[in-house]
Parts: sequence; structure tokens; C-alpha cells
Amino acid sequence: MKKVKVGIVGLGRLGRQHAENLAFRIPNCELTAVCSIIEEEAKKAQEEWDVKYAYTNYDEMMKNEELDAVLIASPSGFHCEQIEKALGANLHVFSEKPLGLYLEEAVRVEEAVKKHEDKVFMLGFMRRYDKSYAYAKKKVEKGAIGEPVLIRCYGLDPSKAIGGFMNFAKNNYSGGLFLDMAIHDLDLARWYLNSEAKQVWAIGGAYGYPEIGQLNDAETGAALVKFENGTMGVFVAGRNCSHGYHIETEIIGTEGTLRIGTTPERNMVTVFNETGAVKECSEGFLERFEQAYLSEVEEFINCIREERKPAVTVEDGVLSTALGYACKESFETGELVTVQSPHNVTRSTT
Amino acid sequence: MKKVKVGIVGLGRLGRQHAENLAFRIPNCELTAVCSIIEEEAKKAQEEWDVKYAYTNYDEMMKNEELDAVLIASPSGFHCEQIEKALGANLHVFSEKPLGLYLEEAVRVEEAVKKHEDKVFMLGFMRRYDKSYAYAKKKVEKGAIGEPVLIRCYGLDPSKAIGGFMNFAKNNYSGGLFLDMAIHDLDLARWYLNSEAKQVWAIGGAYGYPEIGQLNDAETGAALVKFENGTMGVFVAGRNCSHGYHIETEIIGTEGTLRIGTTPERNMVTVFNETGAVKECSEGFLERFEQAYLSEVEEFINCIREERKPAVTVEDGVLSTALGYACKESFETGELVTVQSPHNVTRSTT
Amino acid sequence: MKKVKVGIVGLGRLGRQHAENLAFRIPNCELTAVCSIIEEEAKKAQEEWDVKYAYTNYDEMMKNEELDAVLIASPSGFHCEQIEKALGANLHVFSEKPLGLYLEEAVRVEEAVKKHEDKVFMLGFMRRYDKSYAYAKKKVEKGAIGEPVLIRCYGLDPSKAIGGFMNFAKNNYSGGLFLDMAIHDLDLARWYLNSEAKQVWAIGGAYGYPEIGQLNDAETGAALVKFENGTMGVFVAGRNCSHGYHIETEIIGTEGTLRIGTTPERNMVTVFNETGAVKECSEGFLERFEQAYLSEVEEFINCIREERKPAVTVEDGVLSTALGYACKESFETGELVTVQSPHNVTRSTT
Amino acid sequence: MKKVKVGIVGLGRLGRQHAENLAFRIPNCELTAVCSIIEEEAKKAQEEWDVKYAYTNYDEMMKNEELDAVLIASPSGFHCEQIEKALGANLHVFSEKPLGLYLEEAVRVEEAVKKHEDKVFMLGFMRRYDKSYAYAKKKVEKGAIGEPVLIRCYGLDPSKAIGGFMNFAKNNYSGGLFLDMAIHDLDLARWYLNSEAKQVWAIGGAYGYPEIGQLNDAETGAALVKFENGTMGVFVAGRNCSHGYHIETEIIGTEGTLRIGTTPERNMVTVFNETGAVKECSEGFLERFEQAYLSEVEEFINCIREERKPAVTVEDGVLSTALGYACKESFETGELVTVQSPHNVTRSTT
Repeated sequence: MKKVKVGIVGLGRLGRQHAENLAFRIPNCELTAVCSIIEEEAKKAQEEWDVKYAYTNYDEMMKNEELDAVLIASPSGFHCEQIEKALGANLHVFSEKPLGLYLEEAVRVEEAVKKHEDKVFMLGFMRRYDKSYAYAKKKVEKGAIGEPVLIRCYGLDPSKAIGGFMNFAKNNYSGGLFLDMAIHDLDLARWYLNSEAKQVWAIGGAYGYPEIGQLNDAETGAALVKFENGTMGVFVAGRNCSHGYHIETEIIGTEGTLRIGTTPERNMVTVFNETGAVKECSEGFLERFEQAYLSEVEEFINCIREERKPAVTVEDGVLSTALGYACKESFETGELVTVQSPHNVTRSTT
Repeated sequence: MKKVKVGIVGLGRLGRQHAENLAFRIPNCELTAVCSIIEEEAKKAQEEWDVKYAYTNYDEMMKNEELDAVLIASPSGFHCEQIEKALGANLHVFSEKPLGLYLEEAVRVEEAVKKHEDKVFMLGFMRRYDKSYAYAKKKVEKGAIGEPVLIRCYGLDPSKAIGGFMNFAKNNYSGGLFLDMAIHDLDLARWYLNSEAKQVWAIGGAYGYPEIGQLNDAETGAALVKFENGTMGVFVAGRNCSHGYHIETEIIGTEGTLRIGTTPERNMVTVFNETGAVKECSEGFLERFEQAYLSEVEEFINCIREERKPAVTVEDGVLSTALGYACKESFETGELVTVQSPHNVTRSTT
Repeated sequence: MKKVKVGIVGLGRLGRQHAENLAFRIPNCELTAVCSIIEEEAKKAQEEWDVKYAYTNYDEMMKNEELDAVLIASPSGFHCEQIEKALGANLHVFSEKPLGLYLEEAVRVEEAVKKHEDKVFMLGFMRRYDKSYAYAKKKVEKGAIGEPVLIRCYGLDPSKAIGGFMNFAKNNYSGGLFLDMAIHDLDLARWYLNSEAKQVWAIGGAYGYPEIGQLNDAETGAALVKFENGTMGVFVAGRNCSHGYHIETEIIGTEGTLRIGTTPERNMVTVFNETGAVKECSEGFLERFEQAYLSEVEEFINCIREERKPAVTVEDGVLSTALGYACKESFETGELVTVQSPHNVTRSTT
Repeated sequence: MKKVKVGIVGLGRLGRQHAENLAFRIPNCELTAVCSIIEEEAKKAQEEWDVKYAYTNYDEMMKNEELDAVLIASPSGFHCEQIEKALGANLHVFSEKPLGLYLEEAVRVEEAVKKHEDKVFMLGFMRRYDKSYAYAKKKVEKGAIGEPVLIRCYGLDPSKAIGGFMNFAKNNYSGGLFLDMAIHDLDLARWYLNSEAKQVWAIGGAYGYPEIGQLNDAETGAALVKFENGTMGVFVAGRNCSHGYHIETEIIGTEGTLRIGTTPERNMVTVFNETGAVKECSEGFLERFEQAYLSEVEEFINCIREERKPAVTVEDGVLSTALGYACKESFETGELVTVQSPHNVTRSTT
């Protein structure tokens, strides 16, 4: 079969990583087009990776008939529209999370995806493709821990990145801590527990950075979730982790427990000095999930070539977003919130 | 100053450990009397540790005028009454947790303790005297992690002990998972966060042992607590931990994080074999907290000799119990519960 | 610049990994030819990676004028001759370790490499390109541990692989434990200590597998090396590591210590079960050094494109081999051995 | 049986620890006499622990007929003579390591001990009584690692203590690095490997502290030892460990490996901060081996009461010293040294 020709939109840090992977590290695909509203970025990428087409306008890229697929790595606010357009242009679509910033959007995209059943749609829940997370999933499926009972997820961004976040958040709607940061964890919980969320209580505060409180957001927050099958989820999300990018997940089962990333160590080196025995920590998502970002897109390309659907579905995106919104509502109201089926919600608002 | 003469009541596993410590390992005290309703136990202890007096009746021991202090290690249901009698007999009192099985009892004991201000009263929240926990407390006080934001506490009993628990629980009121297992963690949270609980949501289930559900109790449970100063507490308690006795505490602060007991390793040996690199785990509380059980009673004796009060007060017992009852209520009703001041509660019921 | 066209010889496990990397994961190169004396292997590879040319005869491949470079992953006994032929054919050369099975061969290759100064020659000491090892090197260079004093290297093959080794070793000359297994560690020691070996004492035995003793080889061995600058090296090599592939390196300095791979954990998952807290271990070199195998060849390609020389030189191969032979001699004679300069040795035998 | 009455000589840091243990923490014994040439120390101890007799002259203490036993914690140069005198006074003897500073002395003491067969003699190889080391020994005996093949021992004193050592070493004969520091490790190796040393090569240097070199001693050294049963020992000893007191032992067997003290962590707390995930380390021997120092003397008292001999014999002291001297000789001459039986050596010199 011929190579899958991909166009990418969005050339920020993660976008560039995806582009480089498509250009060099993923078999059987070709980075055929790049698109960024910043012309410079697009040109630089075109030269750097010897790309045939460069665009500053997404709609123009959509008209390129050579393309088989598009990878969307633009700012969150554009995902929805760009997904719909790409599907409309008969392209396979890989979109970075989130599906959309609002639940209604997400549900709308879901419908669009379902209408284009012949197209591969994949959402960038890359953690499922991280070797350690995938290994843990297999362990669970093989019964290594009996039945899962409780999942604990830490999703903590490094303190060093908080300045950048504040600048962004003052002018943009990020979705807030639970939607923006915890969304990967909410998806993982659904994946490992094999159940949907039923009730949630979420709390938090702006402990070290009161400015975050002024945005009605939390710097660090915690949510306790009861799932439909009676299992439990504990989520801690934060933007002020002094030791780095701390992504840790634990699945407690009736016959064993798995932990992924107990210490977010950046490599296999231990430094012993006057401080003690030190494991240095990951600085950010690109460092921690380098392999996962590569593997997920590899899977996307393989799905296209082998005419099959990826394990992460659009529904995963919608339901994780629904849970994220329930967390957000609970945090904002202080109340225990019952998670609504997003489909019913939307229907009622129509 | 002369040696502090101590009588002990209760000679179960923990009682015997305390007795042996008093007899041999704690300076400036003498194990002068032992008491157990099981005559055999009392006699055996008397011989083993060369103790002057042995009783099968607590009231008889209370009449012994040689005694300076009593250590109460009897079943939980007796604590309250025995504390009150000991104070009435003008003795210093060390009581194992809990203060009592019911909140009203605990409040009554609190009043008794306050009436006997010249007596040393100490509650067996031994973890505060564990070297690692004490070290972490000092770290927090020195500002090593900035301001505490969230505490996560795991209190998990080994699966191996579940048979014994079931036998006990079928015939006795244990207080339930949150009061019986999590009480130490609730105290630790108050200690590290320097605040009282405000609201709690607790959930749980009987995942591997449905019999526990029939007792209206949880095998594994989780509680999320909001504290008055805006900080957060995450508690996981359980009776079915396959790898052993897992007590782990984490304090996340604005400038750092501390973890105590990340892996509940029983010693400094790592075994490498076909399984991998294995750290064997603690089997139970006597193994994990051997040093703490010794140090807390050492502190009790020192307080008596130096005429000062221990850092753990009767109020700590009452307030931790109140929080435990709020967890229990939340678990039973499924609702978000506001933690009531135990003093108000009692007053209103009087 | 146009893509570097590479031919590969040897399509065993490691050869196939290199071929796949050249075909898909390394920018700016093209896998143009594959060669294996096993026709099937060559054909399969040609189809699998859509390769232009397939050979069963190395000399034929050497005549292909499209090629810019060759990657040699054939059995050790062929390296020398194939390197010389490739240089003679004016190709850049990447060769898997060892340079050759005999010191004289290695010295001869060194001369050939020096004669073709315009060609890039690189030896597969991949560990230097492993992220953790490279990070440790930078740390050392920045003075993080003061001056290096002692290096400890463990190079232990998994017990599971011992059957395969025995079958091979009965019919082939492997070089023996110290040359075959420890060669990477000997190179690392020279690299981190910045000095050449002066004296060595090596011992060992065939503890669990007496058959290895019958081959005059050691199953597990240890060597203590004194370096010219007064620093020390401790090497433990073995073929019978029950927990897997254990590569661990420690550099003790005057002001700190670094450890790389304290536990040879295969991923970030910890399994807690009745056994304890278990870190599963790497099963073999392809698993442990996947990234390094990719990065070293990436560097090879970059060196060709940027007309510069890699940091690993042919001299590194020669001197590490000389030290390996000194270990071997010490193990066989039981004596303390002074490491001879390979250049002098050869000269004297000429 | 009545309490064992013990006199102690030497009230330095370790002496005081032993005295306090005898006074308070060890059942069935009484600290009856203290002795120090520094009158102040003796008086202070007498008051502090309410001791009946205080001496400044060891010979005077030997005349005290109430004593059953003596614990020798005086400077190393006095051990030999004091042991002989105590045995002559018909006392049970516990002596801190080393038996003596010279091999001839050690052999002489051995003879004295053998003449007083009815007396308990015990040497302070406390590590054998450390819970982790004892646990590892049991594991080995149960076959958990098959047959031991190699032991690796690290005995590294903290850099912080180097000033104190230098002051001492300028005016006193310490025995040098291998005898003074490695002696515990040499004993452990003999214990775990169940064999005596046959040949040794030892090297080292004064890397950060050239003054140590001027004393003909090594700051950090390494020794490789071949044992009579073909097993191997790797020893690293040092006085300049920046992260603290690092005592680590590894036993590699044909079917598994044990490590004791991989990281010399001081407690169960992990600190996460800008540096990374930090385990603080033990500062010294009293911190690391607190429990072992207590347990060994407990065993000594129990041996006296139960009329049995401890597992650590005087021969262990002699043979470990002989190995230490072989290391010293190898380090000083640069040669491979065959370990002589100390008994033969002495006989020949008589």
C-alpha cells in the first residue's frame, strides 16, 4: 500500500514534535502539508522537514486532494471545527485532546464522527500508548490484580510552567484545572475501571498562586469519583508541582496493586550527593511521553492502512469531557454532582 | 526521681508488646501490675516479666496504691470506662486508640481528663512518634514544603488478617472501616494540616469480601475531606491489601512534597529473582510500628517524670473520632456531610 | 543534502533492529541494500522494508555504487574483513562491536581506518548513546561528582539466554566472558575515568553451569582494574542473572556518586502483590537499549551528512579490546596482568 | 536466674550507647560498673544511669567481684590486653571490634579465649545482628539465591567525619583503611560465602585528601578477593562518601541476588522538591546500626544466661583480621597476596 499522506495543523511545541515524528520516525506515512496561522512557523517547518505544501489557512489545506489524513494540534478552541471540516473533506483525523472546550461541541463532533464511519478518527489520549500504561492495562486484563477497586491519578504540571499558564489563562478559556489537566486521568480511570462515572465531589484552591483563584480556577484540586460499577477514583490535579511533571497512576485491585510512575524519574540515573540519593524528575509532557506521542500516531497510521479503528474512540473523548465538566461544576458549586450522560444533556438543551 | 510504677490492662498482641517494653526497654519505669480477664494471660505475663501483681479484675488493680500510672490496651469497648476509673483512682493514663467507640463516650472522657488536669493523659496515636512521621513533621514545620495543601493517607490492613477481622466483626461493633482503620490517618491529617475537617464525602464497597458488605461496612473505602483552612485530605482505608500492611502518607505543599512509606518495605533487603526486583512488605502494625510503640510510651513516662503534657491531647482523640463518624455517616448515607463540632453535638443531645 | 544510502550486512536480531531503524526511524537516510548469507532473510527484509537491493554475498554488495555507507551486524568473526572491504570500497562504516575477535585484527582495522581518514567509521558502543549514560557523562563533565575515583560496572546476561549461548559457544569462539560481555563496560570505564587501564586481576568460575568451565570460560567473573591515573574499576560480568539483563554502572567521585540502572526495571510499573513490591526487569539488550541502538546510528548518519567524526573512535575499540584480553589472560593464568599497549604488542610481533 | 551484672570500659560515643542500652533497654542485665580514664566521663555516666561503681582504672574494675561480665568499648589499642585481663578475672567478655590492631595480638587473644571455654566471649560484629543482614542470611540459608557466587561490600564513611579521622590518624595507628573500615565487610563475606579468603589484590588512593596518602593510607580503596571455595568478594572501602554513611552489601547467587541497603536511607521519608525525589541518607554508624548494637548485646546477655556460645566466635575475629592484613599488604606492595592462615603465621614466628 502507498504511504499515508498527512497534513498537520498547529506547529507549537507538541505540533512540531508530531510533525517531526510524521516526517522521520513513523513508517509508511509522509508529512505532505503543514499549516500554521503563523506564516514563519509554516515556512520553517516546510524547509526543515522538506514538506511539499505549507499553508497559513486551514481551509486551503482542506482543499488539497493529495492528503489522506490530518493531524490537528492547534489550540483547543479550534479542534471541533477543524475536525468537522476534515471529516467533511473526507480525511482521516487525528486530533489532540480535548475534543472541544465545551461539552456541546464534543457531542456535536461525536455525531460528525459517527456519520463518517469509513474514516479513522483518533483522539490524542497518548497515555494509553505509553509503554508503562499499556503494560499495566495488559496486567489488569490478565487478572494480575483481581478486580480493580480504586484508581488514584496524579496529574501535576511543574511549577516552572505556571508563568506560561497564567499568561495563557488570563486571555483564554482553558476549561479549568479539571478539564484541562485531569482529562487524561479521567480517560485512564474509565479505561482501567471499565465503567462510567456516576457521582463526583471536587475541591481545590489557589494555595501558592492566588491569581489562579481570581480566574475562578484551582491551582491544585482533588476529586473523588464514584463509578457506576461501584469502584472509586481519586484524582489530584495541579499546576504547582515543584519537582517537575508528576504523572502517577495507581490501580488497587482485590488481589494486587499497580503503580505507574511512582517517582517521575527522568532517566535511570541516581545522583548521590550531600542532599542524599536523588532521582531527578521529568520536566514536562514532551519528555515524559515522547514514546507515547510517537506510538499513538504510529497506531493512527496503521489503522488507516489496515482499515481498522483505534481503541480510543470519540466516545471516550465525550465521556471524559462530561466527567471533567462534572468535576468543574462540583468544584464551582461545592456540591456533590451526579454525572449526566452527555447525550441526554444535549438532547434536553436542543 | 523514683521509677514510675505502671499497671497494664489487656494482654493481647499489642498489650504484650507494651508490657514487654515497660518491663525491659523503657528507662525509669517498672511494670508493677498486669491485668487480664483471662487469668492464664495474667499469670503468664507475671512470670515472664517478673511482675509484682497480677489481676483478673480491673477494679482490683485500681485499688493498688503502689501504682502511678495505667496503660490501657484492652478491647476498644472498655477504654472509656477504664480511663474514667483510672483518673478517678488518681492515676496517669495511657490509653490505646480509640478513646471510645462512640462519639458521646469520647466527649465524656474528654471532660474527665480535663477535670484531672494534674494527671498525664495520653492517647496511643503512635504514628506521631514513628521516626519517619516525626521527621516529616519537623520538615513541614521548617518550611521544607512551603504550606501544606493536600494530605493523602493510605491505611491498608493485610488480606491475611481479614479472616481474623471477620470473626471479630461478626460479634462486635468495630466502629467500621473509617473509625477503626482510618482513625490514625484522620489524626495525622489534622496534625500535618493544622486544621479541622469541615466537609467529607466517603464512599466504598465490599469488593472481594461481600460478607463485609453484609455488616454494612466497607472492605475498601475512600474519603475526600475539605479542611477549614481550605486544605484537602484524601483517605484510602482498606482491609484487603494483598502485599501486606500498607501505611503511606503524603503531604503536598506549595513548595515541595513529602512521602512517608512509599513502599511498605519490611527491611533494607531487596531480593532479585525471576520475579524481578522485590521489596518484601510489612506484615502488620507491630512490625511496622515497633519503634513508635516503644517511643510513645517512653514519652508518656517522661511526661510523668518531668511533669509536662504530651503533644497528643484528649482533644485530638475527640476530634479525630468526630471526623471518623462524619466519614461513616457519609459512607452510610451517600451524602456530603458537614463535620459537626463534637462538643456542640453532645451539648445539643444533653 | 541528499539522503545517505546505507547497506546492511547481517540480519539477525540486532541486524533486523538496525535495518528497521534505518528504514523508518532515522531521518535523512535510506536503507538501500540488505545482505545476508541466508537468502530467505535477505528476501524477507527486502520485501518488509521495501529495499532496492538484496544480496547473499557481501562482496557483491560492495560493488553497488549507489551506496554511501554500510552497517555491519554480521557475526563477530566477520567484522574485521568486512570493515576493511567496505573502507576499500570507499564507504562510511558502522560496525557492531567487537572490532574483531583477536587483538591483532583490531589493530589491523585501526590502521585501515586511519588510512581512510575521509570516511566516517563508528563502532557500536551504543551505551554511550543511551540517554541515561549520556546524561551521567554530562554530569561528570560538569563536575557534579568532583573527580571520578572508581567505576563499578555490572554486565549480566539473563539466565534465560544461557542455553542459546551454550549452543553458540560450543562451536564458536566467543572471546570469552570478559571480551564478549564486559567489552561495553571496559569502554565505559575508559570513557568515564578518562584514562587507560594499567593492571588487572580477573577471577571467576562456572558456578551453576559447569559446562561453561569445560569451555575454559567463566559463567560469572569479576575483575579489578587499576587505571593509569590512579583510579579504579570493578567489573562483574556474567551469563546467569536470574532476574534478567542487568546492566548497572556506578561512578564514585570525590564529591558525589552516580548510578545508572540501579534496578534494571523494564518500565515504570511497580506491581504490588503477595510477593511484595515488584519491579519487573529488562529481558535483554534490545529491550534495554532500544533507544541507544537508534540514537547511535542516527549519530552515524549525522556525522556523514555533517562531515564530522563520531566521539567513539576506532582507538576506543582497540584499547577496550586490549583491556578485555588482559582480563582474559588474568582469568586464565590467575596472575596479576599488566595491560600492554596494543600498538607496542603488535609491533613487537611483526 | 538473677540479672547479669556488667561493667563497661570506654565511654566514647559507642561506649555510651552500649551503656545506655545495658542500663535501660536490655532485659535481665544491670549496668553495675562504668570505667573511663577520663574521670568526668565515668562520673557523668554513673549519675546519668544510676550506676553502682565508677572507675578510672580498668584493673580496679577487674577486682570487683560483683561483676559477671565486661563490655569493652575502649580504643582499639587496648582491646587485647583488656580482654585477656577480663578472662583472667573470670568474666564473660564482649569486645568491640577489632580484636586487636595486630594479627599477632589477635591470635594471642584467640588462645586466651580458648583457655576460658566456660566463659562467653563475643566480638562486636554487630552487622550480623542487624535485622536486614540477619534476614538476608536466613534467605541465603533457605536457598533463596541458590549458591552464593559473589559478594560485593561497600563500607563508606561520610565525608563529614573525615576531619575527625585525620586528627585521630595523625597520632594513632588505625590499622589503615582495609583493617579499620572494611573489617566488618570482610567478616560478612566470610559469613555469607561460608569460606575463607585465599588471594587478594587491593588498590586505592588518596583522591580528594592527599594528606591521607601521606599517612600511607588510602582514602578510598577496592579489593578483589578469591575465596577457597571459588567464590568472589569485591570490597570498596572509603572515608569520603559525600552522601553519608553508606553500608551496602550484595550477594549474587546462582539463582538470585540479595541487596542490603541499596540506598542508605535514614528513614522512610522521601522528599520531593526542586532537586527531584530525594532520599536523605544515614549520617553514621550509630544511626544506621542502632538496632544491631542493641541486639548484639542482648544476645551476649542471653548467651550468658542460657550458657551457650554466640554465633560470632573469636576465630571470626582472627580470620577477618588476617584477611584485612592481606588487603593492607597488597595495597602497600601492589602485589597479589596469598592470605596466610594466621595460626601458621604465628607459629612460624614463635
